[in-house]
Amino acid sequence: MNVDGKAYRTVWTDNEISSFSVKIIDQKKLPFFFEVKELFSVSDVIRAIADMHVRGAGCIGVTAAYGMWLAAKESRGDSIQLQSFADALMCSRPTATNLAWAVERQLSVLINADPADWTEIALKEAELIADEDANWCRSIGENGKELLLDIAKNKSDDQTVNILTHCNAGWLAFSDWGSATAPIYAAHRDGLPIHVWVDETRPLNQGSRLTAWELGQEGVPHTVIADNVGGHLMNIGKVDIVITGTDRTTRYGDVANKIGTYLKALAAHDNGIPFYVALPSSTFDWTASEGGLGIPIEERNQDEVRRIEGLSAAGELIGIELAMPCVTYANYAFDITPSRLVTGLITERGVCDASEKGVMELFPDKKQLCSS
Amino acid sequence: MNVDGKAYRTVWTDNEISSFSVKIIDQKKLPFFFEVKELFSVSDVIRAIADMHVRGAGCIGVTAAYGMWLAAKESRGDSIQLQSFADALMCSRPTATNLAWAVERQLSVLINADPADWTEIALKEAELIADEDANWCRSIGENGKELLLDIAKNKSDDQTVNILTHCNAGWLAFSDWGSATAPIYAAHRDGLPIHVWVDETRPLNQGSRLTAWELGQEGVPHTVIADNVGGHLMNIGKVDIVITGTDRTTRYGDVANKIGTYLKALAAHDNGIPFYVALPSSTFDWTASEGGLGIPIEERNQDEVRRIEGLSAAGELIGIELAMPCVTYANYAFDITPSRLVTGLITERGVCDASEKGVMELFPDKKQLCSS
Repeated sequence: MNVDGKAYRTVWTDNEISSFSVKIIDQKKLPFFFEVKELFSVSDVIRAIADMHVRGAGCIGVTAAYGMWLAAKESRGDSIQLQSFADALMCSRPTATNLAWAVERQLSVLINADPADWTEIALKEAELIADEDANWCRSIGENGKELLLDIAKNKSDDQTVNILTHCNAGWLAFSDWGSATAPIYAAHRDGLPIHVWVDETRPLNQGSRLTAWELGQEGVPHTVIADNVGGHLMNIGKVDIVITGTDRTTRYGDVANKIGTYLKALAAHDNGIPFYVALPSSTFDWTASEGGLGIPIEERNQDEVRRIEGLSAAGELIGIELAMPCVTYANYAFDITPSRLVTGLITERGVCDASEKGVMELFPDKKQLCSS
Repeated sequence: MNVDGKAYRTVWTDNEISSFSVKIIDQKKLPFFFEVKELFSVSDVIRAIADMHVRGAGCIGVTAAYGMWLAAKESRGDSIQLQSFADALMCSRPTATNLAWAVERQLSVLINADPADWTEIALKEAELIADEDANWCRSIGENGKELLLDIAKNKSDDQTVNILTHCNAGWLAFSDWGSATAPIYAAHRDGLPIHVWVDETRPLNQGSRLTAWELGQEGVPHTVIADNVGGHLMNIGKVDIVITGTDRTTRYGDVANKIGTYLKALAAHDNGIPFYVALPSSTFDWTASEGGLGIPIEERNQDEVRRIEGLSAAGELIGIELAMPCVTYANYAFDITPSRLVTGLITERGVCDASEKGVMELFPDKKQLCSS
């Protein structure tokens, strides 16, 4: 997607195998500053993921895939060392399933290859993963766009379609296009009148910081709201559809996503508003059990809630404390939205019911990955 | 309640009729600074209410009652002027029903009295309203405490009772004790092991700023969470009961309260967790129609969401901008929780079903106030 008119991906290399560095858009600085950060080692990559300089299902996967390229180099042909880098990368965020998916994919192509070819193979695979991610997201956009066109058809002429989204499942959360935002970008480029309600998404404000910035760059009309507001908007008829992303989804259609997603799904259900989740197949956890109860829910540092960043009157990016030091916070990063609250899943292969039947009909080739 | 061991109310005069000033705890400075602000005129009172130096159902009502004392003085016996002050006070916050209730009560005692006695009568009535408010809240505490004791009884020995609350319906929101917090304070003083999950309550963070401060002063264990977290906590069994306050409640049991309350009620309902609303009878809108659809929902300035206040590294209370200037925000201050999601209402007369039958059985004397 474009940043000030120039096309970017979220993660890339300058494609010189000798340089051995990975470049990322530093998402901790956005929207206040647009900065590219260069990662030179596996530990740089782990820190970038754990500290959320990159975040979002696909983007974490792609970054980890490039991380495995650096791991291939740093391992110097030692497969025990390579496995240990892989383990460390996989532990950097516990809930995101794309992370494990991308690392394991790299491992599986490297493990039987000649160690002399590791770096070349790993770089090629990382680029393949990044390209696939972008292409899948583009397909999600085309498939999801149909849902928005259908809503528009049932409205009186030229009325705006109102979409509510939570967190950032935009192109910043993938290598390009995004999942939840892909249908929005596709419909907007086709000229459909749309407006997006953007949940601020406390504690890290990925909505007001990242999604609003993305939509602004693309010229999509949008309004940011506190996370408390969505239910009321649905209640007064100002939301036509909810689309979110996901960090991990079971094949039964249960959705782990940014904390607060479950509350919006409940409100959509209570108001008869369709609630869709957009994801590439890499975000499915084919072995997770029904209901998603086994999915680990990351608990992060309480300072992420206690402190908040923004621009001071002097235009500097600073952090302030929102409560007295004696106050204790809890910081659960994700919740589970059960499949019964999910109208459907928007994937690169099409839209399906949030059910085992719906998912397996679209992905029959994944059957051998499923257990239990 | 106590502040550093000294008993305070939220609004008071120094009880010298000649001084003609109203004192309030400035809630915009809490918890960072404890400051008492003095209001000398009706317009001071209106500004204090509109700009939320005082806020919360009962506290707004009591402040407006004292405001009518200043109005009685400033009107100099002119009843048209008095009515005009009353109208201005009532418009300072559109959703709060205690505001209109207190102002109309003052008008009704003043309008037939000798104008020479207005200030004396209005002061007496304001103090009566403040005392009633405190006493009602204390009774709410006693009545609601029984619910917490019942929950404790059904737990294995000495297990903590976990209460989730939204916004601040604490003593700062009344003249004393609070509504949602009154059962908590009563149970805590009786030695029941309790813990409170405090919703941060964006955009103005009355939870992390006011409720956490109150609970801390009283020594009640508590943890602040982002507004997105409550659904997940209920899902994993960490919430036994939800208790909130309300700014206006219909006699059918529909609850207007701080934006986001509806989302927590949905989650409580989905998880089979009791959801109670605590209120003195002054917060009922006896004429509002079923479902609460006619209740005006205040839309406030978007800068309340875009900007946030906290302590800088230098310990100064400062505001920062959370998004780029080009971002548009919407700021709805309340939502409606329909009675079907409310387990019961905790009032000064007892606990009742959130239904017309339940409410009118407790308040048969209010029948003549009901219309439609």
